[in-house]
Amino acid sequence: MTLREIVQESDTKPGRAFDFTVLFLIVFSIITLTVETLPDLPPMAQSALRISEFVVTVLFTIEYGLRVATSTKKGSYVFSFYGVIDLVAILPFYLSLGIDLRALRAVRLLRVFRLFKLTRYTRAMERFGKAIVHAREEAMIFLFATFILLYLSSIGIYYFEHAAQPDTFQSVFHSMWWAVATLTTVGYGDVYPVTLGGKVFTFVVLMCGLGVVAVPAGLVAAALTKVLDDEER
Amino acid sequence: MTLREIVQESDTKPGRAFDFTVLFLIVFSIITLTVETLPDLPPMAQSALRISEFVVTVLFTIEYGLRVATSTKKGSYVFSFYGVIDLVAILPFYLSLGIDLRALRAVRLLRVFRLFKLTRYTRAMERFGKAIVHAREEAMIFLFATFILLYLSSIGIYYFEHAAQPDTFQSVFHSMWWAVATLTTVGYGDVYPVTLGGKVFTFVVLMCGLGVVAVPAGLVAAALTKVLDDEER
Amino acid sequence: MTLREIVQESDTKPGRAFDFTVLFLIVFSIITLTVETLPDLPPMAQSALRISEFVVTVLFTIEYGLRVATSTKKGSYVFSFYGVIDLVAILPFYLSLGIDLRALRAVRLLRVFRLFKLTRYTRAMERFGKAIVHAREEAMIFLFATFILLYLSSIGIYYFEHAAQPDTFQSVFHSMWWAVATLTTVGYGDVYPVTLGGKVFTFVVLMCGLGVVAVPAGLVAAALTKVLDDEER
Amino acid sequence: MTLREIVQESDTKPGRAFDFTVLFLIVFSIITLTVETLPDLPPMAQSALRISEFVVTVLFTIEYGLRVATSTKKGSYVFSFYGVIDLVAILPFYLSLGIDLRALRAVRLLRVFRLFKLTRYTRAMERFGKAIVHAREEAMIFLFATFILLYLSSIGIYYFEHAAQPDTFQSVFHSMWWAVATLTTVGYGDVYPVTLGGKVFTFVVLMCGLGVVAVPAGLVAAALTKVLDDEER
Repeated sequence: MTLREIVQESDTKPGRAFDFTVLFLIVFSIITLTVETLPDLPPMAQSALRISEFVVTVLFTIEYGLRVATSTKKGSYVFSFYGVIDLVAILPFYLSLGIDLRALRAVRLLRVFRLFKLTRYTRAMERFGKAIVHAREEAMIFLFATFILLYLSSIGIYYFEHAAQPDTFQSVFHSMWWAVATLTTVGYGDVYPVTLGGKVFTFVVLMCGLGVVAVPAGLVAAALTKVLDDEER
Repeated sequence: MTLREIVQESDTKPGRAFDFTVLFLIVFSIITLTVETLPDLPPMAQSALRISEFVVTVLFTIEYGLRVATSTKKGSYVFSFYGVIDLVAILPFYLSLGIDLRALRAVRLLRVFRLFKLTRYTRAMERFGKAIVHAREEAMIFLFATFILLYLSSIGIYYFEHAAQPDTFQSVFHSMWWAVATLTTVGYGDVYPVTLGGKVFTFVVLMCGLGVVAVPAGLVAAALTKVLDDEER
Repeated sequence: MTLREIVQESDTKPGRAFDFTVLFLIVFSIITLTVETLPDLPPMAQSALRISEFVVTVLFTIEYGLRVATSTKKGSYVFSFYGVIDLVAILPFYLSLGIDLRALRAVRLLRVFRLFKLTRYTRAMERFGKAIVHAREEAMIFLFATFILLYLSSIGIYYFEHAAQPDTFQSVFHSMWWAVATLTTVGYGDVYPVTLGGKVFTFVVLMCGLGVVAVPAGLVAAALTKVLDDEER
Repeated sequence: MTLREIVQESDTKPGRAFDFTVLFLIVFSIITLTVETLPDLPPMAQSALRISEFVVTVLFTIEYGLRVATSTKKGSYVFSFYGVIDLVAILPFYLSLGIDLRALRAVRLLRVFRLFKLTRYTRAMERFGKAIVHAREEAMIFLFATFILLYLSSIGIYYFEHAAQPDTFQSVFHSMWWAVATLTTVGYGDVYPVTLGGKVFTFVVLMCGLGVVAVPAGLVAAALTKVLDDEER
């Protein structure tokens, strides 16, 4: 059993142990990152967090070094998606850039799928992949329609509400915030029409918008049904 | 006809009468539990509720005793799901623990399905069961994606809104409340972004989040269609 | 051509004219009913509305008389769904009961389907009918689950929020309003949890609730797909 | 290669260049239109926007002239959908009508599909077309049901809430705003019931309304599945 097998693969026992250790460190560092944002932490907790961050970063650096050293072609890892993510996850600590990129560690969680290289999980992912390929063209048209709808809604509500609420609907850009909150049916309640025209317009936009929001569910359902059917045959 | 048949089964007339009595007691105790929480109840109503609670708990205790006595293997009932629920539903009264666990009686309502042991209801449940088996792997991936999405949204909105609204977005934990209310499109309106960055981020998150929320509907539809198709053949 | 054919059927030209006249009167009376609720109407408009209401009610009475007179078996119309609705729509005016039941005229709008006795519309209705038959058992289970979920949510939020917001979450009954607004994702924003426990509980409830809300869409989609497939064969 | 081929078709290189130039101008003019609504623009930016608008309108006029000149039958373009849109997009500038119809330029964006005359995109559009044909009858019934539901909800909430909130629920027309915000689950929170009757009524309306909102998703899913199935065969 070579070092390469342990670091790069998860077929052997030590290989799986290595993967689980990295996974644990990722989850641990995400939790500390979240706890760190809590206000009024006691000084002791702050010290503990700073030390644990140092330790985790060092371990991630060692892992990065091992991956670079054991990859068959150095470039293939360094310039791969995970290679870039791994680097971006440790760089901020060393550079102390002020900007905190450690949130990207969450993206590393996607590695969890590598550990579950079981047939069934792969099959489920493949199904989703096939469903997306089936629904790709429709999804693009839907996305385009969403943007057109958002823009036209913003223009429309701006003309109806600008005079009545000049602060809330200052410009078409400001109106887009209303369009987003309304078409997704979130409706925070910080921005809403007060004029008759604006209310009628909102109704019309919602009748169209709910249809657009309903389409992806339909697409995914249709495509998945198709893929499951194909598998059966 | 033995006592065992009356308590444990619902094929005979007395057996069904026993089941319906227990069902009525469950519904009755849930209603009294709910009425009890009403403020400014007259003293007479409070006394009536206290007496009815005593009577119901005694009856539930007798039922529990009968079930333990008539189960073929004692352990099989005591340590079963319903056995634990039945015990938990009567214990609080005797222990007067202060904490009120009677709400768990509602779970006992699930027993209603035992009474409707008709082919059609069983068939519908079986269909759901099969549909869940079909969609299980996809549902797990979806749940995992939801948690990742919730976490990344909380981190993102924290960085955008913490400076502008330090009270509302105190930490990443506090931001999660916003993420939950937004990604489910509930949008209470107690927490919402005010900065341009936060608003644009909300739009991006919603575009991804609505897709994730739409997936289970697609999965259930796809799986149920599949199951209904299989049945037909 | 007999009077019976004109009133009861819509195959002949006069029969269709009769149906369209009644339809027009229904729509007209609904509009006047709605306009009547507007505050600060000028006296002239109020008089016009009162006269038009008198005329419409007289015409509806004549229609009711004709339908009773021309029905093959008197009882069959008088005690039918539409017979009761037709009576209920004119009675309030004569009885001047104070309670205004004229809103029920809207139900008479369902008659519009009688006019469109074209194959295609009938076919679409039949498809829906078949889809509902297919999904009936699942829909009942879903409805039962919704009520259980609503009740458990209300109980849960009551225990978490009662101490912090005794006015809003006065009792389990008051908490149900929160449960309804949240599980349907309407989220008016008049009631929402403020404690940590209440917020975490809301998240859990929403994760379950969105699934329940998503089920009917899946059921309708699955059943309709099935029906459309059967038709094709 | 004739001028007609360049303007009307997109098979040749200059034809595609012409189409992309027009597309760029449309997007550019939409952006300037949106930027123009921003408050407190510096005078220089305002001048630049006014000049760019003049230039774009002149170019759109030239395009319109070319299209009229090169269309095989003049009338066929002038009175076509795009012909009218193109005229409406340039007229306001010349007429200085005060009303700004330039927002209609966004509709011209639909032309983008002409550029992507690839088989696959056409196929996706055709699928949608077929799906709509399949679901047309059901969709009409659904729309009719939505309006009936909206009206009955408005009438109902008016009777329940008018006395308690005479300002918000002034008339049935005012109540419709509540009905729209509630049945679409947007729930801005500016209008909501406060009486017990109104809250119970809201629950009943939402149970029916969510079903109606869920139907189109089911219809689209069912119809698309059907179309994809037919294609496969």
